[in-house]
Amino acid sequence: MPEETHAREGIPLPVRRSEDGKAVLLLDQTLLPTEERYLRLESLDEVAEAISSLRVRGAPAIGITAAFGLATATRRRVETHPEPVDITVLRSAFQSDSRQLRRTRPTAVNLPWALDRMESVFESAESGPVPALARALEDEADRIAGEDREMCRRIGLHGRELIPEDGAGILTHCNAGALATGGMGTALAPVYTAHKMGIPIRLFAGETRPLLQGARLTAWEAQRAGVEVEVLTDSMAPALMAQGRVDLVIVGADRVAANGDVANKIGTYGVAVSARHHGIPFYVALPRSTFDPAALSGAQIPIEFRDPMEVRGGRDKSTVPEGAGVWNPAFDVTPSHLVTAFITDGGVLRPPYEPAIADLLGAGGGKGPHGGVDLEEGP
Amino acid sequence: MPEETHAREGIPLPVRRSEDGKAVLLLDQTLLPTEERYLRLESLDEVAEAISSLRVRGAPAIGITAAFGLATATRRRVETHPEPVDITVLRSAFQSDSRQLRRTRPTAVNLPWALDRMESVFESAESGPVPALARALEDEADRIAGEDREMCRRIGLHGRELIPEDGAGILTHCNAGALATGGMGTALAPVYTAHKMGIPIRLFAGETRPLLQGARLTAWEAQRAGVEVEVLTDSMAPALMAQGRVDLVIVGADRVAANGDVANKIGTYGVAVSARHHGIPFYVALPRSTFDPAALSGAQIPIEFRDPMEVRGGRDKSTVPEGAGVWNPAFDVTPSHLVTAFITDGGVLRPPYEPAIADLLGAGGGKGPHGGVDLEEGP
Repeated sequence: MPEETHAREGIPLPVRRSEDGKAVLLLDQTLLPTEERYLRLESLDEVAEAISSLRVRGAPAIGITAAFGLATATRRRVETHPEPVDITVLRSAFQSDSRQLRRTRPTAVNLPWALDRMESVFESAESGPVPALARALEDEADRIAGEDREMCRRIGLHGRELIPEDGAGILTHCNAGALATGGMGTALAPVYTAHKMGIPIRLFAGETRPLLQGARLTAWEAQRAGVEVEVLTDSMAPALMAQGRVDLVIVGADRVAANGDVANKIGTYGVAVSARHHGIPFYVALPRSTFDPAALSGAQIPIEFRDPMEVRGGRDKSTVPEGAGVWNPAFDVTPSHLVTAFITDGGVLRPPYEPAIADLLGAGGGKGPHGGVDLEEGP
Repeated sequence: MPEETHAREGIPLPVRRSEDGKAVLLLDQTLLPTEERYLRLESLDEVAEAISSLRVRGAPAIGITAAFGLATATRRRVETHPEPVDITVLRSAFQSDSRQLRRTRPTAVNLPWALDRMESVFESAESGPVPALARALEDEADRIAGEDREMCRRIGLHGRELIPEDGAGILTHCNAGALATGGMGTALAPVYTAHKMGIPIRLFAGETRPLLQGARLTAWEAQRAGVEVEVLTDSMAPALMAQGRVDLVIVGADRVAANGDVANKIGTYGVAVSARHHGIPFYVALPRSTFDPAALSGAQIPIEFRDPMEVRGGRDKSTVPEGAGVWNPAFDVTPSHLVTAFITDGGVLRPPYEPAIADLLGAGGGKGPHGGVDLEEGP
């Protein structure tokens, strides 16, 4: 995987198509913050490996990467054959690629959703000329990325209105930023939008044990975007709040139930409890596609438990004695009553959440992973 | 600093005097849990370095180490001079040593207290023969250590009564165990006492970022003592409470104000807020000597800020981008209204705390760091 260097300024883009359309250019997030390396992924195996080994993470960014992976693989096949391509061979290869990508992260909701969209386009276009088919797949991948960028922009605009115009200290947890999406992120979109408008922002990034996405990723991208950022351990957030330095909290979400219960990175719940204790607004920013109406409450959202070695720190530098147990849930559930408001691409939702969420999803028109996203209209 | 090995079973002892009286033998806690190494500290610089770089930590253990440091330094001076020692030179060196040790850690109250006791003994004994002076300093250091061991035992007995006889899940933060004291600890003393009585205990140890004393030290010593222990990241404690697995919280304290506000390891406050949110008792275990009646409230307790590199993770494996700021307070203040009870060597204190604390300190007889410890009597 040879590398290609991008400009080192502004809000970073975690993934894009190469100019020639034959490769996926991907920022290797496992190397951040010490090294900024862009990989040129020229085979589908490389794309699949990048997803499964977390070189790219964040549900939207994973979906976009998979779509680019299918589009670039098809472009390579079309261009490397001197003679006209047999559509049967092309279809078989495409379906095999899609299956391989689908297996990389079994739980991410945007991944199968993006693959389904690409497969539909293939089916619609396969009866036409092959160059048009390749172009149609590229267009769909670009559309998935573009829709995500637009969703982020809208979340930013809606969320910005919740930030005081004379400046604010904003605490976030984990990374729900540009690196997780095709745009400027979900939780960080209001931060970037306010910053661009000249509102003085001080961003506080909880480091987010065990994998440190807050320290490694949020601090890195905020700095690139010119936002003043300070890292703290997760345990310091309540003390920071007690000092009056946090005006509001914005976090992302991995999945939100129909009643507004929020599954997000482990530690989010503690931040919400502490925000409530201090009377600080606690906002959850997310695209409509993250609501899961099939889950009636947080109790119906399965919580992934991950390898205890993430907490132990590995064999070389173990921080936990061998015989001691380790508890390592990847997510926790924040009950909706601790959420001040949801910041979505469709506007800000206030309690009671059940009807507000139902309204939002009902109004959308069926393009999102859960049937609620339509980016061609409104506001 | 050559090493010396101790027995590897039961509740560990973090520090003691060498047999010849010329060195401090100290378990290097920075190497735990992967390596159990005892250092032989033969100069005062080494003792000061061990305290400031956290090879020994925990207010009582620091005080004991400092007392041993002064006693062994004096013993070395007395024994390495062939001729009778000039008392003026000896006093000057002693005072310089004491000043050096006093500067090592700003927040721990036992450190200046132990040094004051040693200085008083020096003043009382300096008019007599030099060998008797050296012996008096050793006796005083041994007395400080012995008093601490006895205090731990009493805290264990009083705290045990707050633990349900049919067993309990107990969450603690940082390490207020044997490794922090001259005995079986403060927060962990009730745990060990209950365990010895056959009460089934499941101990949950928050890992305690940034220096991981919970994961490295509490889990290690609990395991050595045969207590079942599970480690979690600090951010997981609220989720663990929400699952009903925590019956009570016991933490230690670095300094407690006259009104009951508690300065303790950063992260303690968040645990207290979350315990209150879940209706879980939050206990603070401490010797009388940790109360500081000169501080009327937590606002008067100075909070030590430590090197940001503790959070950044060092130059080789940096987890925070270079330009990003880092907030690294070593302690936070938990307001007394979040404390269910104080478990002290003089009994369990319930609200209102101001009179209860005043009573406790008034009753003690003037031997503690703040005039409240007398271990020759009751209960």
